[in-house]
Amino acid sequence: MTLKLGWIGLGNMGQPMVTRLLQAGFDVTVYNRTRAKAEAFVEQGAKVANSPQELAEQVDTVITMVADGATLEEVLYGESGVIHGVRAGQTVIDMSTVGPEPVRFAAEAFLQRGVKFLEAPVSGSVGPAKEGTLVILVGGEEQAYEQHKPVFDVLGKASFHFGESGQGAQAKLAINLLLGVVLQGLSEALVLGSKAGLDRETLLRAIGVTACAAPIVLGKTPSILAGEYPAAFSLKHMEKDFGLALDEAKKVEAALPATSAAHQTYVAAKANGLGDQDIMAVLAHLERMSGLK
Amino acid sequence: MTLKLGWIGLGNMGQPMVTRLLQAGFDVTVYNRTRAKAEAFVEQGAKVANSPQELAEQVDTVITMVADGATLEEVLYGESGVIHGVRAGQTVIDMSTVGPEPVRFAAEAFLQRGVKFLEAPVSGSVGPAKEGTLVILVGGEEQAYEQHKPVFDVLGKASFHFGESGQGAQAKLAINLLLGVVLQGLSEALVLGSKAGLDRETLLRAIGVTACAAPIVLGKTPSILAGEYPAAFSLKHMEKDFGLALDEAKKVEAALPATSAAHQTYVAAKANGLGDQDIMAVLAHLERMSGLK
Amino acid sequence: MTLKLGWIGLGNMGQPMVTRLLQAGFDVTVYNRTRAKAEAFVEQGAKVANSPQELAEQVDTVITMVADGATLEEVLYGESGVIHGVRAGQTVIDMSTVGPEPVRFAAEAFLQRGVKFLEAPVSGSVGPAKEGTLVILVGGEEQAYEQHKPVFDVLGKASFHFGESGQGAQAKLAINLLLGVVLQGLSEALVLGSKAGLDRETLLRAIGVTACAAPIVLGKTPSILAGEYPAAFSLKHMEKDFGLALDEAKKVEAALPATSAAHQTYVAAKANGLGDQDIMAVLAHLERMSGLK
Amino acid sequence: MTLKLGWIGLGNMGQPMVTRLLQAGFDVTVYNRTRAKAEAFVEQGAKVANSPQELAEQVDTVITMVADGATLEEVLYGESGVIHGVRAGQTVIDMSTVGPEPVRFAAEAFLQRGVKFLEAPVSGSVGPAKEGTLVILVGGEEQAYEQHKPVFDVLGKASFHFGESGQGAQAKLAINLLLGVVLQGLSEALVLGSKAGLDRETLLRAIGVTACAAPIVLGKTPSILAGEYPAAFSLKHMEKDFGLALDEAKKVEAALPATSAAHQTYVAAKANGLGDQDIMAVLAHLERMSGLK
Repeated sequence: MTLKLGWIGLGNMGQPMVTRLLQAGFDVTVYNRTRAKAEAFVEQGAKVANSPQELAEQVDTVITMVADGATLEEVLYGESGVIHGVRAGQTVIDMSTVGPEPVRFAAEAFLQRGVKFLEAPVSGSVGPAKEGTLVILVGGEEQAYEQHKPVFDVLGKASFHFGESGQGAQAKLAINLLLGVVLQGLSEALVLGSKAGLDRETLLRAIGVTACAAPIVLGKTPSILAGEYPAAFSLKHMEKDFGLALDEAKKVEAALPATSAAHQTYVAAKANGLGDQDIMAVLAHLERMSGLK
Repeated sequence: MTLKLGWIGLGNMGQPMVTRLLQAGFDVTVYNRTRAKAEAFVEQGAKVANSPQELAEQVDTVITMVADGATLEEVLYGESGVIHGVRAGQTVIDMSTVGPEPVRFAAEAFLQRGVKFLEAPVSGSVGPAKEGTLVILVGGEEQAYEQHKPVFDVLGKASFHFGESGQGAQAKLAINLLLGVVLQGLSEALVLGSKAGLDRETLLRAIGVTACAAPIVLGKTPSILAGEYPAAFSLKHMEKDFGLALDEAKKVEAALPATSAAHQTYVAAKANGLGDQDIMAVLAHLERMSGLK
Repeated sequence: MTLKLGWIGLGNMGQPMVTRLLQAGFDVTVYNRTRAKAEAFVEQGAKVANSPQELAEQVDTVITMVADGATLEEVLYGESGVIHGVRAGQTVIDMSTVGPEPVRFAAEAFLQRGVKFLEAPVSGSVGPAKEGTLVILVGGEEQAYEQHKPVFDVLGKASFHFGESGQGAQAKLAINLLLGVVLQGLSEALVLGSKAGLDRETLLRAIGVTACAAPIVLGKTPSILAGEYPAAFSLKHMEKDFGLALDEAKKVEAALPATSAAHQTYVAAKANGLGDQDIMAVLAHLERMSGLK
Repeated sequence: MTLKLGWIGLGNMGQPMVTRLLQAGFDVTVYNRTRAKAEAFVEQGAKVANSPQELAEQVDTVITMVADGATLEEVLYGESGVIHGVRAGQTVIDMSTVGPEPVRFAAEAFLQRGVKFLEAPVSGSVGPAKEGTLVILVGGEEQAYEQHKPVFDVLGKASFHFGESGQGAQAKLAINLLLGVVLQGLSEALVLGSKAGLDRETLLRAIGVTACAAPIVLGKTPSILAGEYPAAFSLKHMEKDFGLALDEAKKVEAALPATSAAHQTYVAAKANGLGDQDIMAVLAHLERMSGLK
């Protein structure tokens, strides 16, 4: 017998993820603050709930995929929040990136109602969400993780269970800081190249065959050459994730010098109006900082 | 008619590169300060010269692959240096990483003797040197580059001509800073993970399937898990290259915040005795800095 | 008619501050978690309360001076907290350094009970607390500030009213980051000097007559020369304040590259067991990082 | 019998220094590339030489005070350079800031001619140069230092002999990095303050009475409030000195995280056209980076 799923959050990421679940035959009820976004899924076979609470009352497992901690708080604990609709035996899975603290808090809050809670943040943006090639980083009870592997298998190419609540969130922060530092490094290499008079396309072609050619580097190359940065993963979200990683680092006493240098660059890029562009727009900011534009 | 090649410098990189050239049928004369290292190539078919000068007198093209700028200066301009043996029409190619200034100087010095000079530093360490999969970054006269493509094709999987003398060296610095920043980012992600209690192997497996999984990241994983860092590319050489990149950045007025933060970490790692270990030993230093070891 | 004051928190800072108030003739009731510390002030003329609530019931103005945000929360809102003892017309003044958020929250919470709230964090450590030469940075209603100037005049050599609730806290963070960066800069200058073989005492004497000779630099010189760092202002508190400043900077989108580099150094120093020593022990950590000790 | 002094370099610093020496009764011959600047000192009692060589032939002690290492090289070793005019028994003193390497080189070069060489870089800019309150940091033979103390006493309020050639230069770099970091820290504090809505004048008044109130902080306050940065010590010179300090740090293996973060900010400020303004213009750059202007 398959699980009845409830999905909250139909942004850039949520939309393709729900489409995949529906195509895989899952029974999915959706909720979104802007109801029109939810209605759009009816013809794909989804049901629509009027509130997070109502959605929780109708499904076995609630999955949330929202923009930030404040939004998560609202959909979980707000008036008509998920917590008011759950019953013992259900599972709540948060796939957003909100850091370890809110998920530990949620795990405890739901446990008191006999509800299991997993955090399952993802590495990968819109493209992998569409193709089902996300990487899913899970924290929480192992049995609940095993039970929902069929869901994760539809959404991602791999999922990893890191341990208790909070550890999936921590893994996500560690991986995302690497992403941000890699793109900062790429940007600094390109800025140095341009100031030194190197042809950018040749430099990118060369980088593309070195040992530094991470998939993200190859993936961003067309956008860099076009000098246009429509958001796949927005710079302001990367800035937020850097902030969460450094908060966590502070708590566990991990010193992260390059991460914090990169973070400050993203803060400056955001302060200069680049927050809604793609993370790769950090290059545009570094170019400006070096007087290139 | 094939070129008679002269090779100076039989360290970690030079040895496998010369072996490949000999196996490909090139006529190679070698010189090394420690003569025994040169003699060892005789049975592979190499001739041995007694000095850089003598070597230059016997070949069409001299290739240098040495540890740093001071050594290059010695073999090129020292008492029995290359410059005293060259004649018009020859080519000198430096494949070391010494930054743009010494190669621009060399280009001018050799030009005055009617000798062409290319810099052709490589991206890739011992493994790619053996397999002929280096990436070769060339600056200097285009015709000389074209003439030596058969040589580059034996040594690397790709070569790029960036433009005039110095531009290959600049490309190398840009690419190497990216390498150093990527491994710094990886190390910071792992330190955060360990301080937060994550299983390192699981974290590395997860990273290995994300968009950050650069070949260098996958390549260093076994060494990280073993916690042993025998030098493929030594940390002190990366520290030197970071220094060269930042010197160049200073000159062309490029601000590189994460690069300089990473550089300082490598300086500290070197000050703590890790200079002769692999670049990846920067992780060991960051672990110590965060009280892990 | 003089104000009846209630004082909560008799740590390193609170003790000399209360002594000054008593000596100046103020009527002071004290509370401290470890009651013995409170009893010790009886012979100086203080009364002792059994709880923050009881203290609030007996005085006109409650002043808190505690270690961190968590402790402040407990004494203000915990069971038997201040908030349960206040009545309309009173004032609560927090002199701790807890950042803008908790003080804005407190201002609102007390306002609902008709109680005025000022934050009045101080710049200066134990010495200035004894001598009454603290610098007091106030946020909150101007009239309440004016009313308590006689108190501030006993405790500090100057007080500044920055504006509404939170602005005194923000000023404190800005000033403290400067302090931390200055001592980091001093430490880096000394590490460079020592690695270069300079006599430290001569270097410090020279610095002591330059334009960089801030009072804190002169004040820390004996401790540096002795190589001993008993806490006047503990390194872990500076680390906390750096963290609060960078959190605030993130919110208001201010990029602070040197502050964040210094912060990471303090995090590492703390991770290496230096948290309970004086802020100046950051020098000991930087020395270790450069292989000096 | 007093020394006959020769002075090379009549820029912002050289001019007031020569005036002081003349007023103190020294016999001074001057040389400057732009001869008009030299002529202007005739009515104050100076003689004018036609070249560094001629100047060296006419005096006991040659003092150089020039903009950078390249200029120093030219006046010392160029066609009509000092070195061609010296004779055994003389002394050459360089008061520029050029780093340890050129002064060690000079010491050796002049020693071979029986000429003593001191480096005596100064801390302090135009104001202290006029008032004779520079701080003079000397490396080289102690006896030569003692012999020239009367000269140093006219130019500075204090002089320190650090040891052999190069050590005065190193002390200068250490002290100047502290200066640069202090003003970077001040700027970051002010940027955070402004983004948080604090009144800048109040914040500066508060800073001005804290333990961070270095003379340079107080000295720059009027310029900050006016938002105008006419060069006392130009930003590009600070950038150069940061670069020299970090080069030296690299050599002696000293890790300087905040210094390098600050340096990158100065590089960016210079890339954005602020190099000829005062060092304090780093604030203007940081404001721009945070979207303030």
